[in-house]
Amino acid sequence: MPEPALTSLPPEVVALIDHERLAQARLPQAAWAYFQGGAADEVTVSANRAAWDAMRLRPRVLRNLTGGHTRIKLLGRTCAHPILLAPVAFQRMAHPDAELATAVAASAQEAGMVLSCQSSTLLEHVARAIGTDAGRGPLWFQLYLQHDRDFTLELVRRAEAAGYEALVLTVDAPTSGARDRERRAGFSLPPGIEAVNLLGLPPWRPAALQPGQSAMFDGLLQQAPTWGDVAWLKAHTRLPVLLKGILHPDDARAAHDAGADGLIVSNHGGRTLDTALPTAEALPAIVAAVGHTMPVLVDGGIRRGTDVLKALALGARAVLVGRPQVHGLATAGAMGVAHVLRLLRDELEIAMALCGVATLDQIDADLVMSR
Amino acid sequence: MPEPALTSLPPEVVALIDHERLAQARLPQAAWAYFQGGAADEVTVSANRAAWDAMRLRPRVLRNLTGGHTRIKLLGRTCAHPILLAPVAFQRMAHPDAELATAVAASAQEAGMVLSCQSSTLLEHVARAIGTDAGRGPLWFQLYLQHDRDFTLELVRRAEAAGYEALVLTVDAPTSGARDRERRAGFSLPPGIEAVNLLGLPPWRPAALQPGQSAMFDGLLQQAPTWGDVAWLKAHTRLPVLLKGILHPDDARAAHDAGADGLIVSNHGGRTLDTALPTAEALPAIVAAVGHTMPVLVDGGIRRGTDVLKALALGARAVLVGRPQVHGLATAGAMGVAHVLRLLRDELEIAMALCGVATLDQIDADLVMSR
Amino acid sequence: MPEPALTSLPPEVVALIDHERLAQARLPQAAWAYFQGGAADEVTVSANRAAWDAMRLRPRVLRNLTGGHTRIKLLGRTCAHPILLAPVAFQRMAHPDAELATAVAASAQEAGMVLSCQSSTLLEHVARAIGTDAGRGPLWFQLYLQHDRDFTLELVRRAEAAGYEALVLTVDAPTSGARDRERRAGFSLPPGIEAVNLLGLPPWRPAALQPGQSAMFDGLLQQAPTWGDVAWLKAHTRLPVLLKGILHPDDARAAHDAGADGLIVSNHGGRTLDTALPTAEALPAIVAAVGHTMPVLVDGGIRRGTDVLKALALGARAVLVGRPQVHGLATAGAMGVAHVLRLLRDELEIAMALCGVATLDQIDADLVMSR
Amino acid sequence: MPEPALTSLPPEVVALIDHERLAQARLPQAAWAYFQGGAADEVTVSANRAAWDAMRLRPRVLRNLTGGHTRIKLLGRTCAHPILLAPVAFQRMAHPDAELATAVAASAQEAGMVLSCQSSTLLEHVARAIGTDAGRGPLWFQLYLQHDRDFTLELVRRAEAAGYEALVLTVDAPTSGARDRERRAGFSLPPGIEAVNLLGLPPWRPAALQPGQSAMFDGLLQQAPTWGDVAWLKAHTRLPVLLKGILHPDDARAAHDAGADGLIVSNHGGRTLDTALPTAEALPAIVAAVGHTMPVLVDGGIRRGTDVLKALALGARAVLVGRPQVHGLATAGAMGVAHVLRLLRDELEIAMALCGVATLDQIDADLVMSR
Repeated sequence: MPEPALTSLPPEVVALIDHERLAQARLPQAAWAYFQGGAADEVTVSANRAAWDAMRLRPRVLRNLTGGHTRIKLLGRTCAHPILLAPVAFQRMAHPDAELATAVAASAQEAGMVLSCQSSTLLEHVARAIGTDAGRGPLWFQLYLQHDRDFTLELVRRAEAAGYEALVLTVDAPTSGARDRERRAGFSLPPGIEAVNLLGLPPWRPAALQPGQSAMFDGLLQQAPTWGDVAWLKAHTRLPVLLKGILHPDDARAAHDAGADGLIVSNHGGRTLDTALPTAEALPAIVAAVGHTMPVLVDGGIRRGTDVLKALALGARAVLVGRPQVHGLATAGAMGVAHVLRLLRDELEIAMALCGVATLDQIDADLVMSR
Repeated sequence: MPEPALTSLPPEVVALIDHERLAQARLPQAAWAYFQGGAADEVTVSANRAAWDAMRLRPRVLRNLTGGHTRIKLLGRTCAHPILLAPVAFQRMAHPDAELATAVAASAQEAGMVLSCQSSTLLEHVARAIGTDAGRGPLWFQLYLQHDRDFTLELVRRAEAAGYEALVLTVDAPTSGARDRERRAGFSLPPGIEAVNLLGLPPWRPAALQPGQSAMFDGLLQQAPTWGDVAWLKAHTRLPVLLKGILHPDDARAAHDAGADGLIVSNHGGRTLDTALPTAEALPAIVAAVGHTMPVLVDGGIRRGTDVLKALALGARAVLVGRPQVHGLATAGAMGVAHVLRLLRDELEIAMALCGVATLDQIDADLVMSR
Repeated sequence: MPEPALTSLPPEVVALIDHERLAQARLPQAAWAYFQGGAADEVTVSANRAAWDAMRLRPRVLRNLTGGHTRIKLLGRTCAHPILLAPVAFQRMAHPDAELATAVAASAQEAGMVLSCQSSTLLEHVARAIGTDAGRGPLWFQLYLQHDRDFTLELVRRAEAAGYEALVLTVDAPTSGARDRERRAGFSLPPGIEAVNLLGLPPWRPAALQPGQSAMFDGLLQQAPTWGDVAWLKAHTRLPVLLKGILHPDDARAAHDAGADGLIVSNHGGRTLDTALPTAEALPAIVAAVGHTMPVLVDGGIRRGTDVLKALALGARAVLVGRPQVHGLATAGAMGVAHVLRLLRDELEIAMALCGVATLDQIDADLVMSR
Repeated sequence: MPEPALTSLPPEVVALIDHERLAQARLPQAAWAYFQGGAADEVTVSANRAAWDAMRLRPRVLRNLTGGHTRIKLLGRTCAHPILLAPVAFQRMAHPDAELATAVAASAQEAGMVLSCQSSTLLEHVARAIGTDAGRGPLWFQLYLQHDRDFTLELVRRAEAAGYEALVLTVDAPTSGARDRERRAGFSLPPGIEAVNLLGLPPWRPAALQPGQSAMFDGLLQQAPTWGDVAWLKAHTRLPVLLKGILHPDDARAAHDAGADGLIVSNHGGRTLDTALPTAEALPAIVAAVGHTMPVLVDGGIRRGTDVLKALALGARAVLVGRPQVHGLATAGAMGVAHVLRLLRDELEIAMALCGVATLDQIDADLVMSR
């Protein structure tokens, strides 16, 4: 069990990294390994972060900034700012209030939220908690295409009915990564924590393997989604569909051709394929390929307001943060998540002011120099 | 309270870094965090320093160097050497003699001094202490444009009357940076230390925010200076005006168009926008843009005579040092600051001799190789 | 003596690095220095590893991967996967079952094995142990050309008779490297461990040196192999001959001209010439030179399934691993080696799935971005 | 006083770095600081070493190497190998046998020796000790042009008379560097150790400085050598004159025009101008400028046989080592220095064998890849 969350934040918590330190102290080692760890040697986890730091800002001065704001347009909606919560499974491991706390915090801070289909709270409960909040950000539902396509469709229907505004199809995890840290810590889901949205899913029964066949290629991957499934999903929902996990511009073009409504440049926070390209390095080519036709978002290593600004300078419409929401949640529940979001928003405004941009569409590539 | 300053310097103090170590041991942690810290993760603080080190000198030999010197011309004046003290606020936190000690040391070492408008000593007292010293360097006054333009003008009049020779308008801090180290240390000004030059400034009363408005963009930034204010200032003073905090060549050109008399390439010592370009990397483009029309100075990470020489090789007319003066001040008051300046001057002469340059105008870009 | 091997693997052993840690704890310091150490400052040992990590994967998504597999063709044979065991001498120092354990593990995991001519088990015993195993990978024999060419030929005849399928002539070690770590540890072969295949080799008796002659050039190197010896070997065996230790494309072309049947790009695991080019950096030029005419394999620093995939993306047909087999062997004998191979195979399948490739010939250079 | 030197070397001393460790343990801290330290932050000391390591060797295989050797031609003489001892002052601080031990070791190992004019042993004694040794390498005398040109000339006459074969004029130290480590350690010459060759030198009496004059430019540098002095020296000696401390190709050309007979690319081991270009990076441009007209040697950070080979691949005719001779001397007197030289020679032969070169003129730039 995690340590009880704090009821007030110590004054020395002034940045996301401080939440990270506090969360590590509160979470059981196995849960920390699950949330914080990445694939294999965690090269991509580090590289994601380092790639933002390696970009140098070249600020402008003495511009008139009054009346500026952080608003963006996203899928036909105006958002107060470009920061969304990335889908994170099993948040109950971090705090008993779980995804409800996260959603309430997001709503209070006008942030978009992408609920994981593996959430430990029913998708309907989350939607009900914030669905009618004035000023809340977009509420999206993340989807893995399950082996049972009927069940998948039922899940889509539930998300539609509950008021989710878009589907985020994760495409970079046809299999789990070699999550070494997690396995070394002997992680398993604690009793009472489960993927409650998926409870009715019939167990997957792969055909028995013939000699020489591979459990991966002849088994597990038979249920992995393909481009055809994107078209299928588009045909079966009225919601916009974003693909999460695109790193190659040719796949971005294929996504456009398949009817995707948006992309999230992501390497799954370094949790699937280790040594995958950092998202900050992958982003420009994706924007160049399809940025004029659909919104391109990005996640991976965003920890500072300056990172958000850099992502937008490279052409992203918005950003998502994953682990930081868990840090805030473990530290102080909804208050912690809200504080994490508030810090990022404040830092973004400071970064804009110090870079001489009053609105996010004034940000351009000239602000950023790669080393 | 800081530890009492030393009355003599130990023999192992042979370089600026030694003053830094001694100062850290003498200053209270919060004051150290204030003076030494930077914005956010202090990436720019480190990068400033690293950028000078990364440049390689390619010295020349066997040239006739007799009669050489370190003199430069700056705004119509001959200076004994190209090292000035950058504006640093609230020096009383480092030593009871505060800015008076710094000014006396600068004068003794023929260094220019830029007094912070947030000095903890009245600008008139500082000017009186050294105004008539033979051989002292230039005495300039640093200015933030205050929300009350009348008060600002009064401050300019006082500076003019006291004998300051130029105004240095800081343009890279429309808002404070995310000074995390300082905030984690719980820094606040100790009792009895205040911005004495600004005592008569009427408090700023921003209009109440409407829902959806931003405390940053609709509040604080309403008083931030713009290019129009530069023109206004130029029209209201007979003193030359330098802009401090320029990193982009387009802003350098704008400064020229606005009538600026000089530029200081600066990122505020890494205290405002973290991950901003190191000044050593920003300098060449600024010099290329406006170096033929006005003097370009630079600060940020200068700790060695070789750094000074490199800055001049990249086209700077002179350099400023900020934190090192605080280190000397905390270590041994005026004597400490004077020692810091003497060390830098000596190192500059050694570097010139070892590079085969007798005068600073013999320094050219051929001396420096970037990695 | 090494610590007794484990009879079951702890659950936290999830990657090759875990075997390495366990092995270090079990092996005597001198044996560890022998197996793990490299030449001089071990710059190449580190660089081999770092070069794979520095390559970034740019995965593809949503492709149909069912029915995929890891099979390759190699010298006319189909192998279940592209991972072979590199020749490692004196394995008895790591475990009493020595090369027999390694061979059995390789066979069980369908991996190719290259037996060192300096094995501590007779080549015939190894071949007998696995020769008739269904599904085993290729069994090759590594050869140093001994000073006595008749003895060398006898060794070749024994390898042929025992059923070895190819000869791997090591060409990058005309003399030992400056194996400093090994020498500092005072390594010498423990009693009872010897190069049993070479027992009949007559001692080498170099001519007495004249004054001014070099023990290296006028002594030891008189027995070193030359291109002529490659032709001689080809003329005296019906087996295919691969050259191991090629780093320069001109030597790859010479190997082709000399009739070599394959190449192994190798720097001897950093054990001979320190600061030699990392194999990952050498590989592309070799493939460009001769890759269309013969299989090019690579070893050096391969520790992850993603490394295997990268090697193949750069044009290698297969890879070899040296030290990891010793780690597995020291940890848990045949079971340990098999586990090492199983981990690599699984990681390779995961990497393929996550990169969107169903078969190894779908891997191309587009997947990899060098930094 | 240093610890007594060892009378036999422990078996774990297998490389130059081992001598360095032993020497540090034996020498008093101040003497260690003097010998080992560099200027300022010792950036160049580290960079010298790192520059060799950063070069990657791309070895050749299977070449006929019998009858190879390490001989070179240098100023009309054949040397057994291309390694010389760089001039190092005051060696008595490292061992009571001082420069005599060093010279005897050099002679035994057929290495050239450059005696420092600041040696703690009379130049005549050194020459007498090894002058008639068969097989010894070249014996050169290093010279600073002293303020008293008559005394300088007398020194030259003594060197000529004693049998020195060339003069090495150090040109990169018109003043001492900011030797911070040495100053922090409070170094001063111990009683009884002095520059015995210079005992008759009249003290230097600079003219009193006028106000505004610089002790550096109007004092010390009045005695610094210029290109004119090179011509003067050439006109006054029958010995060849090499210039030590050239880093810029234009100075190399000037040296040629002034009649120099050879160059040593050097940054004084990082002891004068910190952040000066590493010698490995400076060498190619110097060789390109004048390598066809005179021998170019190099020192700085050479610690491995592979470093020697790389230097020659970049065009150097020979290399010099400074600090390693002090390490050997402090460790075990003449035996220690001889061991250092033997190690380097052996490593060079190993490197040649492993790179496929039988003689040093077979080494070309193709062997080396810069990163």
